[in-house]
Amino acid sequence: MQGLMKSTIGFVGTGRMGANMARRLKERGFPVVALYDARQDSAQSLAEELGATACNTLADITAAAEVVITVVSNDAAQRELFCREGDSLLHGAEGRLFINCATVTPSLHGEIESLSEAAGASSLEACMASSITQAREGTLYLMCGGRQEVYERALPLLRELGTAPRYIGAAGSAAQVKALVNMVMNINTAGLAEGLGLGAALGLDLTMLLEVFSQTGANSRVLQTDGEDMLHRDHACFFSAAHAAKDSGIALGLAVEKGIKVPLALATKFQYDRLVALGLGELDKSAVAELTFPGRQG
Amino acid sequence: MQGLMKSTIGFVGTGRMGANMARRLKERGFPVVALYDARQDSAQSLAEELGATACNTLADITAAAEVVITVVSNDAAQRELFCREGDSLLHGAEGRLFINCATVTPSLHGEIESLSEAAGASSLEACMASSITQAREGTLYLMCGGRQEVYERALPLLRELGTAPRYIGAAGSAAQVKALVNMVMNINTAGLAEGLGLGAALGLDLTMLLEVFSQTGANSRVLQTDGEDMLHRDHACFFSAAHAAKDSGIALGLAVEKGIKVPLALATKFQYDRLVALGLGELDKSAVAELTFPGRQG
Repeated sequence: MQGLMKSTIGFVGTGRMGANMARRLKERGFPVVALYDARQDSAQSLAEELGATACNTLADITAAAEVVITVVSNDAAQRELFCREGDSLLHGAEGRLFINCATVTPSLHGEIESLSEAAGASSLEACMASSITQAREGTLYLMCGGRQEVYERALPLLRELGTAPRYIGAAGSAAQVKALVNMVMNINTAGLAEGLGLGAALGLDLTMLLEVFSQTGANSRVLQTDGEDMLHRDHACFFSAAHAAKDSGIALGLAVEKGIKVPLALATKFQYDRLVALGLGELDKSAVAELTFPGRQG
Repeated sequence: MQGLMKSTIGFVGTGRMGANMARRLKERGFPVVALYDARQDSAQSLAEELGATACNTLADITAAAEVVITVVSNDAAQRELFCREGDSLLHGAEGRLFINCATVTPSLHGEIESLSEAAGASSLEACMASSITQAREGTLYLMCGGRQEVYERALPLLRELGTAPRYIGAAGSAAQVKALVNMVMNINTAGLAEGLGLGAALGLDLTMLLEVFSQTGANSRVLQTDGEDMLHRDHACFFSAAHAAKDSGIALGLAVEKGIKVPLALATKFQYDRLVALGLGELDKSAVAELTFPGRQG
């Protein structure tokens, strides 16, 4: 177990989340040695900051690091890492541990586990239900799926990234839970935007309205995190509208597969798809209020 | 002001909410003297309990009580009290104070204020964003609309019914806020039901799922109040599905009037309408989970 504390670490995906997780581990004394990103300048600049190597190929990451943490943005990107012809993380991967933090379709985690094991490596899904600040501070909410012994091996490292990592079950189960968390969060966000937008249209004092919401059955976590931002159109990105659309889409896929009707999740997906279509997908999820306030978009 | 503490009080509507408010005021030393309900046996049984008189006509209430608190269930019932041919609360109403607690269409409060003033009486809307327990304990969340001087006159009494009564603005504005509170609350409730129902369909541990929701962006007041009930199908009524349908309908009416698109509020209204159509309207709003869990209704 303790051995992992000295394992060399590589990161694939050095965007906002991945970069801050790498900074956190470096700061906590882990040897972060190798970085890769499809945008080479992103990996390069972080490599300079952390004294690591920016690799040109995925196989170079696997060669350099015993533990590889992948933080990419969607199914296609995640799949590429393990299945790309000619260059993949699985090249020379014997004994490696892959920790996959992207929010992807749950079944993909099982596929990656199988492929990893066939290559003599291990894999763990570690879904994150928090954002950039938490990544930097090592207080991510981490939900893990995969083999329990792999989870336990990874725990010393997971504990540096998150406050209280949680083992959910087999590979894919954490992604299912994550999809449900984000589905409900997105519904609450889109619903709040409707309440505030309609309040604005009625000419109500919106600060009063937020306060009343917070003291009644309308209260929610997103009211606390996104309410003010909706009023002030402050949509600096913590969790993008495009990611919200993607995650609601994953949940819808599960609902279709299981024959469960989720009309609110569907309406929410449409709202986030509309935002993306309007070119606003890179704004924070709070930007859904742009669709519901009088005189804004839509 | 203090004079109100000795005013005789009448209640119109002795259902779950009205009866508990009457009990509370009686207990706090107010002379609750006259009761009326469309269901005479309801008024009669409460009258025996409280040592009050069950009246046969609305005019008898106005004759007996200086302050009349109305707690009825919808627009039609509320309008009847003030506009019924032959018998109305406005008969001999000079100097009376009407406090109207029903959740009704906002514009109705303005109509009632005008009618009351024409009869030499005053009226105040006092919207309640809480439930039966709070009514009994005098801890209702009260949002008031009407003339500020009427609000201030009513305050000593309002403070016995609610923890911190709040003046919102002109007649109807409190009902607007209440409609928005319930619209957002109903959206969050219907969304939670989708998340838990889909979690059940996926075979996830639902107690774990509730806990994860509570620690993440999926958290909400309704998660705390309704989450367990959705799992255990415990839909004893605090706030009925039929009321949820009605309140979401009021908010939709405002949205249509203002030209604001509220797709989630609409989807939520459909869900609660479906519950009512299935004959489940008298269950608690948590019963929306009956539509989203595998193997239940729908």
